[in-house]
Amino acid sequence: MEVAEGVSAATPTEEMNGTGNLMDFLDEPFPDVSTYEDFHTIDWLREKSRDTDRHRKITSKSKESLWELIKSLLDAWSGWVVMLLIGLLSGTLAGVIDLAVDWMTDLKEGVCLSAFWYSHEQCCWTSNETTFDDRDKCPQWQKWAELMTGHAEGAGAYVLNYFLYILWALLFSFLAVSLVRVFAPYACGSGIPEIKTILSGFIIRGYLGKWTLLIKTVTLVLAVSSGLSLGKEGPLVHVACCCGNLFCSLFSKYSKNEGKRREVLSAAAAAGVSVAFGAPIGGVLFSLEEVSYYFPLKTLWRSFFAALVAAFTLRSINPFGNSRLVLFYVEYHTPWYMAELVPFILLGVFGGLWGTLFIRANIAWCRRRKTTQLGKYPVLEVIAVTGITALLAYPNPYTRRSTSELISELFNDCGALESSQLCDYVNNPNMSRPVDDIPDRPAGPGVYNALWQLTLALIFKIVITIFTFGMKIPSGLFIPSMAVGAIAGRIVGIAVEQMAYHHHDWIIFKNWCRPGADCVTPGLYAMVGAAACLGGVTRMTVSLVVIMFELTGGLEYIVPLMAAAVTSKWVADAFGKEGIYESHILLNGYPYLDVRDEFTHRTLATDVMRPRRNDPPLAVLTQDSTTVEDVETLIKDTDYNGFPVVVSRESERLIGFVQRRDLTLAIKNARQKQDGVVSSSVVYFTEDAPQLPASNPQPLKLRRILNLSPFTVTDHTPMETVVDIFRKLGLRQCLVTRSGRLLGIITKKDVLRHMAQMMNQDPESIMFN
Amino acid sequence: MEVAEGVSAATPTEEMNGTGNLMDFLDEPFPDVSTYEDFHTIDWLREKSRDTDRHRKITSKSKESLWELIKSLLDAWSGWVVMLLIGLLSGTLAGVIDLAVDWMTDLKEGVCLSAFWYSHEQCCWTSNETTFDDRDKCPQWQKWAELMTGHAEGAGAYVLNYFLYILWALLFSFLAVSLVRVFAPYACGSGIPEIKTILSGFIIRGYLGKWTLLIKTVTLVLAVSSGLSLGKEGPLVHVACCCGNLFCSLFSKYSKNEGKRREVLSAAAAAGVSVAFGAPIGGVLFSLEEVSYYFPLKTLWRSFFAALVAAFTLRSINPFGNSRLVLFYVEYHTPWYMAELVPFILLGVFGGLWGTLFIRANIAWCRRRKTTQLGKYPVLEVIAVTGITALLAYPNPYTRRSTSELISELFNDCGALESSQLCDYVNNPNMSRPVDDIPDRPAGPGVYNALWQLTLALIFKIVITIFTFGMKIPSGLFIPSMAVGAIAGRIVGIAVEQMAYHHHDWIIFKNWCRPGADCVTPGLYAMVGAAACLGGVTRMTVSLVVIMFELTGGLEYIVPLMAAAVTSKWVADAFGKEGIYESHILLNGYPYLDVRDEFTHRTLATDVMRPRRNDPPLAVLTQDSTTVEDVETLIKDTDYNGFPVVVSRESERLIGFVQRRDLTLAIKNARQKQDGVVSSSVVYFTEDAPQLPASNPQPLKLRRILNLSPFTVTDHTPMETVVDIFRKLGLRQCLVTRSGRLLGIITKKDVLRHMAQMMNQDPESIMFN
Repeated sequence: MEVAEGVSAATPTEEMNGTGNLMDFLDEPFPDVSTYEDFHTIDWLREKSRDTDRHRKITSKSKESLWELIKSLLDAWSGWVVMLLIGLLSGTLAGVIDLAVDWMTDLKEGVCLSAFWYSHEQCCWTSNETTFDDRDKCPQWQKWAELMTGHAEGAGAYVLNYFLYILWALLFSFLAVSLVRVFAPYACGSGIPEIKTILSGFIIRGYLGKWTLLIKTVTLVLAVSSGLSLGKEGPLVHVACCCGNLFCSLFSKYSKNEGKRREVLSAAAAAGVSVAFGAPIGGVLFSLEEVSYYFPLKTLWRSFFAALVAAFTLRSINPFGNSRLVLFYVEYHTPWYMAELVPFILLGVFGGLWGTLFIRANIAWCRRRKTTQLGKYPVLEVIAVTGITALLAYPNPYTRRSTSELISELFNDCGALESSQLCDYVNNPNMSRPVDDIPDRPAGPGVYNALWQLTLALIFKIVITIFTFGMKIPSGLFIPSMAVGAIAGRIVGIAVEQMAYHHHDWIIFKNWCRPGADCVTPGLYAMVGAAACLGGVTRMTVSLVVIMFELTGGLEYIVPLMAAAVTSKWVADAFGKEGIYESHILLNGYPYLDVRDEFTHRTLATDVMRPRRNDPPLAVLTQDSTTVEDVETLIKDTDYNGFPVVVSRESERLIGFVQRRDLTLAIKNARQKQDGVVSSSVVYFTEDAPQLPASNPQPLKLRRILNLSPFTVTDHTPMETVVDIFRKLGLRQCLVTRSGRLLGIITKKDVLRHMAQMMNQDPESIMFN
Repeated sequence: MEVAEGVSAATPTEEMNGTGNLMDFLDEPFPDVSTYEDFHTIDWLREKSRDTDRHRKITSKSKESLWELIKSLLDAWSGWVVMLLIGLLSGTLAGVIDLAVDWMTDLKEGVCLSAFWYSHEQCCWTSNETTFDDRDKCPQWQKWAELMTGHAEGAGAYVLNYFLYILWALLFSFLAVSLVRVFAPYACGSGIPEIKTILSGFIIRGYLGKWTLLIKTVTLVLAVSSGLSLGKEGPLVHVACCCGNLFCSLFSKYSKNEGKRREVLSAAAAAGVSVAFGAPIGGVLFSLEEVSYYFPLKTLWRSFFAALVAAFTLRSINPFGNSRLVLFYVEYHTPWYMAELVPFILLGVFGGLWGTLFIRANIAWCRRRKTTQLGKYPVLEVIAVTGITALLAYPNPYTRRSTSELISELFNDCGALESSQLCDYVNNPNMSRPVDDIPDRPAGPGVYNALWQLTLALIFKIVITIFTFGMKIPSGLFIPSMAVGAIAGRIVGIAVEQMAYHHHDWIIFKNWCRPGADCVTPGLYAMVGAAACLGGVTRMTVSLVVIMFELTGGLEYIVPLMAAAVTSKWVADAFGKEGIYESHILLNGYPYLDVRDEFTHRTLATDVMRPRRNDPPLAVLTQDSTTVEDVETLIKDTDYNGFPVVVSRESERLIGFVQRRDLTLAIKNARQKQDGVVSSSVVYFTEDAPQLPASNPQPLKLRRILNLSPFTVTDHTPMETVVDIFRKLGLRQCLVTRSGRLLGIITKKDVLRHMAQMMNQDPESIMFN
């Protein structure tokens, strides 16, 4: 047994009050120490430790003077200030985006003569000549053909309108893709996979930068207005996170600590969903369930605050012109019946199948884009898809309008004043018509017509969305998925309604649907279908139901929604556990350690650690016998992020871990500033300098960059425990020992690779350090 | 460097497919191994590991035969089945409790002649002679004095009714406390502090048992009916958790795994709050924020399911007779104005102060109960408090009725048809009165009268609640806290309303409150006050706002609620971080490691670990040189929960950790069944038996009870990291090493003691092993 281990114990007093320099590694001796490089993983424990240290300093200083006390109070409040700012900015941006999208979507069809910056609705709203029955028609609003040729009707006008619709769409999408290409490549896509990865502790510099914020906001408007089958909900989360990142830079508490920054980003994600749907509680739960990795309770409360501020900011901008907080406000008048659970569950099955189909097809297409020539022409691709979309969308009234208007109409219950084609039922003249209680009636020609158009729209949406999601423009998935579900749901709803009307006597209808009663609400079916499809694609559960609950505002319809969401998730999970975001994370090879994946294989730490059996031995430093030159060689020859420090190569007793970055900076610094440090100087990590002959050059003490508490597991630790530790503590690496001897190292990359291997996925795709 | 370490490596193949007996310790070689003793802490990692193992077995077996496949499917579904059962039973119990409380509360005043099991409301509801104006009066319902003497009015009747009211109250509370004392001592209190502790991984046998369930349900009815200042909400959480525990025993997956059991209990807690308020989402968030410790996303989804089933079961029982899901349904007709935020925030301050006062006074009183003679006469105490409560409550109509009725009335907006004294405004005969839009009016004599009575009720409630909470009967805090806040809020609301009416011209009112307008809703103030007081006492945040949001069903009023909740929490936190539940946990010395406490002191693992400097050395076993007798002596002489195993006492290299319980059982087992094992047999933990002279008795191999992956940290690890690890991984103990040598051990108890020491609390109060 060795006695002289070199690590002399600190004196007890030093240890007791903790003022010794044992924790010097937390101080930042050189600039840039303790920051991370791009595409690297952060060390959560270390970030937390640094924040506690910072907090400790502020608290102890605050007792010194009034100014320091005020500073400490400001520091404590800065979290709330950031939340407030995020809420305000993301609410405002969402409002501006909504207004701009409204206007530009209508611009494809025509223009308001009284004020060209008015959308169709606003134009006719301000006009005195609008009648209630023809809300959509007013002389101020002119279609392009009418404006250019003077003829509003006729084949010529139709063709001209058609042509201009396509032209505008192409123009918008070309602008969008060009802006993304030139100014901010990170602005494309929905951003949620990347944000999940970033929140799990990965660094992607610039992903949440100011340019991305600006370009994403502008191009999002363009992309949505172009009529492509995409939504603004996912990108709004990205926009909100950019806002969060922006405001982080105001306070060093957040800008200098990657862990704290991620708390802010989690809250920003909640604010993003909150403004996307007008559902603050749903937003917080979405952030908790879907996006966030580390979500302490303090963050929950602050997220809620940010989400509320954002929602109310949006409401005071009032882009929908109805003072409603929510995106799709619905009010139903009829309860649902037990027997209706059958079609609801069928819609759930449909949603699950759609989710599976979409994920598989979309991932296959995206992989093809990545690996073939296709990926080299993103602008052309966007132009082509936009052209096809516009060409096919224009003839069908249900695809011509914006997708959120479509969903809104499908969700709606047919009231007495509804002028939509979908509400064209045959009226029974004998019946008095109270405004809100309309009995079931036979479908009129308008409904049958609508059914055909909806079926075509359904097929179109299903196909085109697969090709749209993943192009180099901002594109969200929520709205297209919901549209697919809403169309399917409405069709099923009308079918059930007509069946109930024509077959009162069937046993299933007998108990709850008498003639002349209002039994079936097709709008509710649309809503259930939308929830099912969204659930199938994203695998959201609680947040999905809560968002839908906030849309309807009543607990009444939560059971149908829940039944559909559960079914959809089960069906989709049976075909593959990953939702669309996880699939894209896998496709892009981001180092994301999913909290939900259960690792159930019986492997041990020793099976995963490096060096493997035939590899060269682990690169280690010794505590007092390595020279500066040795270290520099080691740094040059390897690309490891850090090196374990051992007592000696023979005993292999671990004393700490040193980061590559810190080591490089420390040696560079010492060479420049410290006299006598040359290549042959001995580097030592012990408390006291080693006993060296007098002829030796001055040794270099590096104890303060040494992490004296590296994380270790034994080689017999089951991998499921190791995975759990990596997840819960957010480690970058973990050292493996056997009876006190250092055997190897496991990095997050090794863990991910092993997990991929065990699940028979391609382990080489993990981009990561 | 030692070479012969004794731990021979497993062959690579064995390691690769993991089928070696390295993990034998997970198998259960003897009965009762891997269970825990009462008042001990569970090892979360180990429980998780065992569950994964069980899961693995079932999955691999399921491929063998159809029967095994069905069994594996049943196993996968059992979680949902348990949730369904919990929802059904806790919903039913809540409904039964509501009905029984209704009936028995009214029984104190009178009886229904047509059917004695009817409550006052039901009695008059079924009567034909009830008029709308006098909803509360019908000949079938007779007060006791009327029934016994024939006189309904007069001093004599009043005194007789008064007397009988007190008598019934005393009877109910005597029954309640006696039942608790005799049959289920654990049924007392709210149960939430204990459930928090249990969920954090502590074993309290019988706390969630069948007897507790039965007795708590019965005594809860009695306690609430007796008119004491307590609510049923906290105890309902306990009741729901008992249901959860009951249904766990149906499936070995849950009954045999303390970790999985706690997942079910978390969901059950959500179901409890869900039925208490009719707020399923709030219930889930309450469980997440307030009660649960380990809350994976899977549990979130299941909790939501359980909470929904429970809420709908309760609704189909329909105890409130109004088909409403929520406990206090309110509908307001007026928006709130920015200027009103000032009184709302003042109510928040009041709530925070009340929270602080209540917690301090209640804890002081409970400590006195624990330490003085007072605690020896629980029955007498309950009788005395009930007597005083009934004596003081009867004369005041606002305290005579049940507290939830009171809150309900205070929350209500004064409609045109309201007959309450609180709505006795002076009517302006010139004004037409639409049903739901009543302008502000001057207060009539009834309102002034009500204000006095409410003020007295406020003082009474504040004082009596302090003495009530903590007695040996089931008692919840939500309702009394809300009552205090609602009374204060209503008083403030009426004051603001009258001020606005009489001083339209004041600058603050000028902008939003013109004469004849309906500006101020006193009911909203009551609600805000209730939220503030509840927040001050419990320190709930998101769940509080969400529960209140579910009560009103509109996002409109969420900002006032949030403003009050935030203020109340900040004010209360300024006086002390702990809410009432944490304070009771501390008072009772439960080993609860709060997730929210930030540990910010600069101590290191070496300062906390045992043995301390002057203690005897750590009790360790060596891997191949301890005899059975040595082990038995060690077990007899110490009371540690387990012992580290080292290579040899000289090298102190750690190879594993063995549980005391496993060791005892293994040796007992070996002595009984294994020939040749005697006191002088060598116990060995290595793969191969040590080389011993032939004359030695047969050695005993105990490797399979050895945990080969004990958790270690270095002595330089900051305690904040250690605390974090204990919290996140749910450890029981952690070994401390320095450069590979075992130095000491840190148990959860040590961590808690150290934290208490650092916060200058009494460290000796921690009951725990």
